[in-house]
Amino acid sequence: MRLRNVKNKEDILNSSDKLVKNPKDYRGNWNQIFGNNNPIYIEIGMGKGDFIIQNALKYPNINFIGIEKFDSVIARAIQKVPNDLNNLFLIRMDALDIESIFDKEINRIYLNFSDPWPKKRHWDRRLTSRKFLQRYDNIFKKNPEIIQKTDNVDLFQYSVVSLSQYGYKIEQILLDLHSNTDIDNITTEYEHRFSSQGIKILYLSARK
Amino acid sequence: MRLRNVKNKEDILNSSDKLVKNPKDYRGNWNQIFGNNNPIYIEIGMGKGDFIIQNALKYPNINFIGIEKFDSVIARAIQKVPNDLNNLFLIRMDALDIESIFDKEINRIYLNFSDPWPKKRHWDRRLTSRKFLQRYDNIFKKNPEIIQKTDNVDLFQYSVVSLSQYGYKIEQILLDLHSNTDIDNITTEYEHRFSSQGIKILYLSARK
Repeated sequence: MRLRNVKNKEDILNSSDKLVKNPKDYRGNWNQIFGNNNPIYIEIGMGKGDFIIQNALKYPNINFIGIEKFDSVIARAIQKVPNDLNNLFLIRMDALDIESIFDKEINRIYLNFSDPWPKKRHWDRRLTSRKFLQRYDNIFKKNPEIIQKTDNVDLFQYSVVSLSQYGYKIEQILLDLHSNTDIDNITTEYEHRFSSQGIKILYLSARK
Repeated sequence: MRLRNVKNKEDILNSSDKLVKNPKDYRGNWNQIFGNNNPIYIEIGMGKGDFIIQNALKYPNINFIGIEKFDSVIARAIQKVPNDLNNLFLIRMDALDIESIFDKEINRIYLNFSDPWPKKRHWDRRLTSRKFLQRYDNIFKKNPEIIQKTDNVDLFQYSVVSLSQYGYKIEQILLDLHSNTDIDNITTEYEHRFSSQGIKILYLSARK
């Protein structure tokens, strides 16, 4: 997600104790920063953080880590995190570096409205490409689980095939998430906007 | 597919040499009826036959078998089959009996606009249910391949999950088949009607 510049973003980032400045130091030991052994769910590309903050509030016995590469975006997210939310931390990083931050300790990855990278020569950059699934193998604890939401049909089709070919089994697939009343859905900023425009939200969960 | 009664359907069925009257006799030996060892593709629920007839005309080196349980429907299909089409036969049967007709000799199954059986207690009757996938295991030669088209979102979502959980890998998935110009698509009667109404045709191919 790109966002217009936030002027005092450096101050916001530097003064936040929710933003982990030295994430590589915790590799393999993220349970220590949380002070418990609860499952860890991460969101790659959390944008302004609505989704992961709401999840952290709703599920106090799950640990959440939000990852975002753009300073201005993560500054916005930091401003929204309640001070006493102990089960959420944020990391400013590129998803390409994810193996240097985590080591066999993640239980679930959320991919919400990821960049669709429409040009075929860029498909390796899609967060469900084979290359990324290989990276995720090294950060998942066991029973890898990926949950994706998107409004982009091409990215969604690609993800189903890529996950399936890589050995993931699709556990749930919804071609219109918001028409399904059973599912416990926490919306993202994008999702709220798209859905209000009548755009269908596509959803899948997959496990390996 | 149901159809209004065809008055002389018994005559049509009895006089056709395209309709195999004693299909169980060929179990394990369908290559003999075709007189060659070409791959055999079947369509379960062929309706009035447009799809499989067009396929047989287009792919002379593939053998096709169309299966349909309703007399009046299969009578319509029989009337459409060109006399000199040697790579197509039709069978009147219920899909439940498929293992009594074939034995490890089918290369591909087409499921086009199958009955969606919307009530949960009937889901076992869906042609992509676990129960049917187990039956198909016994009729596939090797490298089972299933290709499905439908306009029914619930059936489609169910199929993706059922196939995936059963060990099939999704090779292609399209949420709007007719917007895709790459794929070699032969339309069915249903498809033509639905698509002209703006209903999106869902497509998947899967291999185990």
